[in-house]
Amino acid sequence: MAGSTLATGRRTLTRLLAPLLCLALAACASAPLRGTGDLGVVIERASGSVQIVDNSHEQALARVQGLGDLSHASVVFSRDARYAYVFGRDGAISKVDLLTARLVKRVEQASNSIGGAISSDGRVIAAQNYSPGGVKLFDADSLALLASVPAAAGPNGQPSRVVGLADLPGKRFAYALFDADEIDVLDASTPTAPKVQRFQHIGKQPYDGLASGDGRYFIAGLYGEDGLALFDSWHSDAGVRRILAGYGRGRQALPVYKMPHLRGWSIAGDYAFLPAIGQHEVLVADNRSWAQVATVPVLGQPVFVMAEPGGRRVWVNFAFPDNDKVQVIDVPTRQVIKTLQPGRAILHMEFTPRGDAVWLSSRDDNKLVVIDTATLSQRRTLPALEPSGIFFTWRASRMGM
Amino acid sequence: MAGSTLATGRRTLTRLLAPLLCLALAACASAPLRGTGDLGVVIERASGSVQIVDNSHEQALARVQGLGDLSHASVVFSRDARYAYVFGRDGAISKVDLLTARLVKRVEQASNSIGGAISSDGRVIAAQNYSPGGVKLFDADSLALLASVPAAAGPNGQPSRVVGLADLPGKRFAYALFDADEIDVLDASTPTAPKVQRFQHIGKQPYDGLASGDGRYFIAGLYGEDGLALFDSWHSDAGVRRILAGYGRGRQALPVYKMPHLRGWSIAGDYAFLPAIGQHEVLVADNRSWAQVATVPVLGQPVFVMAEPGGRRVWVNFAFPDNDKVQVIDVPTRQVIKTLQPGRAILHMEFTPRGDAVWLSSRDDNKLVVIDTATLSQRRTLPALEPSGIFFTWRASRMGM
Repeated sequence: MAGSTLATGRRTLTRLLAPLLCLALAACASAPLRGTGDLGVVIERASGSVQIVDNSHEQALARVQGLGDLSHASVVFSRDARYAYVFGRDGAISKVDLLTARLVKRVEQASNSIGGAISSDGRVIAAQNYSPGGVKLFDADSLALLASVPAAAGPNGQPSRVVGLADLPGKRFAYALFDADEIDVLDASTPTAPKVQRFQHIGKQPYDGLASGDGRYFIAGLYGEDGLALFDSWHSDAGVRRILAGYGRGRQALPVYKMPHLRGWSIAGDYAFLPAIGQHEVLVADNRSWAQVATVPVLGQPVFVMAEPGGRRVWVNFAFPDNDKVQVIDVPTRQVIKTLQPGRAILHMEFTPRGDAVWLSSRDDNKLVVIDTATLSQRRTLPALEPSGIFFTWRASRMGM
Repeated sequence: MAGSTLATGRRTLTRLLAPLLCLALAACASAPLRGTGDLGVVIERASGSVQIVDNSHEQALARVQGLGDLSHASVVFSRDARYAYVFGRDGAISKVDLLTARLVKRVEQASNSIGGAISSDGRVIAAQNYSPGGVKLFDADSLALLASVPAAAGPNGQPSRVVGLADLPGKRFAYALFDADEIDVLDASTPTAPKVQRFQHIGKQPYDGLASGDGRYFIAGLYGEDGLALFDSWHSDAGVRRILAGYGRGRQALPVYKMPHLRGWSIAGDYAFLPAIGQHEVLVADNRSWAQVATVPVLGQPVFVMAEPGGRRVWVNFAFPDNDKVQVIDVPTRQVIKTLQPGRAILHMEFTPRGDAVWLSSRDDNKLVVIDTATLSQRRTLPALEPSGIFFTWRASRMGM
């Protein structure tokens, strides 16, 4: 009798316990304890999804769907490197939990947006918008709107499109106004009442911007003329000055197949390496005087010009029809030392934290390619759905990313 | 009957289930899911413990004990920012899990050690030892010994004490030999068979070293003479050259109360800020020519000279009897703009990832002090047991840390 009860009890126990334990294990299994310093996000542009990847083990961990139009998407990370904020072309900000692989929040904040940034203390997310043009500030935790800052109007009377948004130290952001030829610096110390300092007539049609790795300089590339516009935040009274003016003057510009991108990772050693618009060359500027010191001929129109974390080499990808190739420039000699052909439509590159590898996205081959930077040989490929941007969490602790 | 069996079953179930559920909850409670990008470790030197802290919420999370002699301890982090490797003075390496707050591995690898580093790919831990002098390499995961590299002998015939160990790109480490006047560069590409390149007669008694933020330069401070020794890893054929020679020549050196420390974070803007040994001043060198361009008078003998992540200001703490004070130098004007008195025996400083705050350890007041870098005012204090070094996980993705 007692035996029978016990046996029944055991069966009951097993029947009830099994799913509970499964649930407990599933909770653990779906969100294992792990550090977040070597995670990353890969944009899958056509499917509105992101892959979460691990750059130590070079593997995909999960796919998160439902992020909308990611045809021109960028990503920043929370201060604790747990969450990715994905800025979609459709104006939405999606907050993705890298540990649980869940879309935890999503805000539709504009109808056309080009990216965003996170403040130096990690508390404020800023979005740069095309339509309506301006910058919006959000609480990084809740994504509640904190402030809406319209941009100055362009010739058509509408608020300008905003480009090149980058975080600076002291909870500030710098950005450029494509339609109004301005660089603005926004102080988000009081994020519900931000202060904006405007610098006008900085050059025609700034199309993107970069902050230097220490957040001192902000540089806007100009689409409407040769040259770039430089703002030194340590000497803001001096305003914005023109640098590298006339780099293409006297030569016929080629049709531009894809706008190049600027970001802070293009500064290597004592030089800034910058894509020349419409030319098959990379411009090299001294990063003190900002005078042009050289051009490096490359095989096509550069899109991303990115220095390895050690600054010893600079990697370049290209616009159509050369977008199946990547070139590697040796910084001391300023020579191309290698041309790689890693896949069709190489759209982006991302280095591991201290540069032992670089990940490339090959949109048309639906793959990611991991290259060993010591040997320049391919280490691994991973499947991905039309991948574009690749973003690793080391960005969380850097400025201008 | 059926009811009775069920009731017994339920009781059995509850009796067995309760501790299981508690266990499951405890596992979750003791190791919550969280990002690791804003964590840190504080050395509690007298008690052989570390505190795990959260620099976003400015709070202590846990204490881990049993780490041995931490009277001169340093810390590096795993690539995923989950584990801290604590190098104790007693020659032990302790691997601490920041998520579970557990000491997961401990290796006694020398009888007297002064710190360590982690390779650029995160796979190899290197320890720099005083006794026996040399460098040992360990697998970052298991802490299994991979290689033991004895240092060249000093005048007493024993292997030299090793100082200044720093990681360089390409799985290399640079370090200096205090007793043998050497700088060595170790290539750990094959960590069981490392290759060492030796540079001899680099100057008398190198006492510490730093790598620049991009891992290009390694600089050793010299205790036996005025000046520092510079190695440019991009031009290793050129060997090591002397810089800032004679900065104190012709003046009487003061007794040295505490050896200063060098680390890569002292490079701000276009300049390196370095502690002068035995002098009440900070040396300023141009980081291209490495010529001395200025000295900044300070109130005592500098120990740590650390640039804010934005490079706009440099913070300095001091040897006894001025170790209750901290001075802040404005980089463009090279003037001390503030003297703080945050507590007794300020032993270390650590900036948050993008520099919105700095944490100070006050050993004799058993506290940590968090200062807002925008206002230079105190934001919070936290209790700690005779704290010394403070190390945040953003170091995981940086070189020369």
